[in-house]
Amino acid sequence: MEVKNLILSFFLLFLLVGISSTTAASNGKIKVRRPCKRLVFYFHDIIYNGRNSKNATSAIVGAPAWGNRTIMAGQSHFGDLVVFDDPITLDNNPHSTPVGRAQGFYLYDQKDIFTAWLGFSFVFNSTQHKGSINFAGADPLMNKTRDISVVGGTGDFFMARGIATLMTDAFEGEVYFRLRVDIKLYECW
Amino acid sequence: MEVKNLILSFFLLFLLVGISSTTAASNGKIKVRRPCKRLVFYFHDIIYNGRNSKNATSAIVGAPAWGNRTIMAGQSHFGDLVVFDDPITLDNNPHSTPVGRAQGFYLYDQKDIFTAWLGFSFVFNSTQHKGSINFAGADPLMNKTRDISVVGGTGDFFMARGIATLMTDAFEGEVYFRLRVDIKLYECW
Amino acid sequence: MEVKNLILSFFLLFLLVGISSTTAASNGKIKVRRPCKRLVFYFHDIIYNGRNSKNATSAIVGAPAWGNRTIMAGQSHFGDLVVFDDPITLDNNPHSTPVGRAQGFYLYDQKDIFTAWLGFSFVFNSTQHKGSINFAGADPLMNKTRDISVVGGTGDFFMARGIATLMTDAFEGEVYFRLRVDIKLYECW
Repeated sequence: MEVKNLILSFFLLFLLVGISSTTAASNGKIKVRRPCKRLVFYFHDIIYNGRNSKNATSAIVGAPAWGNRTIMAGQSHFGDLVVFDDPITLDNNPHSTPVGRAQGFYLYDQKDIFTAWLGFSFVFNSTQHKGSINFAGADPLMNKTRDISVVGGTGDFFMARGIATLMTDAFEGEVYFRLRVDIKLYECW
Repeated sequence: MEVKNLILSFFLLFLLVGISSTTAASNGKIKVRRPCKRLVFYFHDIIYNGRNSKNATSAIVGAPAWGNRTIMAGQSHFGDLVVFDDPITLDNNPHSTPVGRAQGFYLYDQKDIFTAWLGFSFVFNSTQHKGSINFAGADPLMNKTRDISVVGGTGDFFMARGIATLMTDAFEGEVYFRLRVDIKLYECW
Repeated sequence: MEVKNLILSFFLLFLLVGISSTTAASNGKIKVRRPCKRLVFYFHDIIYNGRNSKNATSAIVGAPAWGNRTIMAGQSHFGDLVVFDDPITLDNNPHSTPVGRAQGFYLYDQKDIFTAWLGFSFVFNSTQHKGSINFAGADPLMNKTRDISVVGGTGDFFMARGIATLMTDAFEGEVYFRLRVDIKLYECW
């Protein structure tokens, strides 16, 4: 009798494991939406405007026919392509010691509202973090928060995947802006 | 005897489960190639040519030294970089109500044949879909179909990964083209 | 007694399987860092300088206000955007028969040191490999080796993810460079 009960409990356990793994296998991955790693940073962008070459951390390198490379184009900057190398800080103070660099590009891609597309990396080389996190995605920057994808990582962030929630923390005219980046990794190795 | 048989069948089941999970663990993922989600859309690109600023949904923002930003460059447009904000529709009618926007860039990157490289997002904000799908990959556009990668997603497409099969559904000279995009997600969360 | 022992061993096995799968489910993926596929290639870039249009495999298509499209810009080429279509070879000989094309773009994005950001694909269409591998990431090119992400793949490289380790194998002034690419895939389908 005792043995039978034990066997029965095994059988039930087995069924449960069997069902769950089958579901996962046929539908792709089914996972809990809880980050395995979470990091918050700020980065600071000062765009070149013809007069600030010393401080500028970014520059227009492509523009539509009706634009140029020292003034952002009309129609919500549509077509402006900007390359950047921005300091990353742990808080929102632009004078804090940088912990890494945000490097890559953004481009404005809508005429009737400010919207951008981003391809860039966070590059770390400190005692705290070594490696890079690679991002890509649409940034409808008039929204309070917007999500882009973490498409990969290297070093400490080997094979990472996840979501980064962007928030414009400050902006001054068309020269300075500061983004808060809330990185939530859902695939950690 | 009965008990022994039961145990034996457990044992066999166990072996099977054990073997399959071991293989998966050591070699990375081994999965069935059946999409967990499939979506078909069309998007419509009208490139700025100096005379169609009202209708244009895209514009050349970068070109090689031998090109300019109102006429596609020679040598299969090699080096032309185009930023776009194209309407997405459910059918191939350019006048259908858009269900989202395709936003990002493409660049022509081969001299002897038309070939492009794409980095863009599908951005949805309707009752049907909210969120974005992020794409990247090579588009040898003279081929009838070609595959690019879905590298991530947000909102309804949280953490998505998969393949998008592109097909040129129509093109008119160097001003208009329409792409059919067959999105097959193999990782759904 | 024999039966009890068998049951006990089942139970222990069960516990082990149960624990390992639970850990994996709650923390995302936990996997061994052993590639499921490894490939080494070289690719060769000859940049257009106004005099080598016949041999050039790449061209500057975007530049900052202080630069142009036939000479790399000052300040470590900051802001130069280059589109390329480079032959891929199995060894470091630029005259070897290409096995595919490396197509996409790189941009220089730091003023005080040579650093680039890459978005490109390896495109194969031979008896040996069919399909594409898509890459993105930061390339601090003064480092002996640097890692970028494999963000996806198609065909033979369906749904691939991994790391590519880049190494500058040769460079000649500002006209030619050769990269060794050591591709390690950790997700194979």
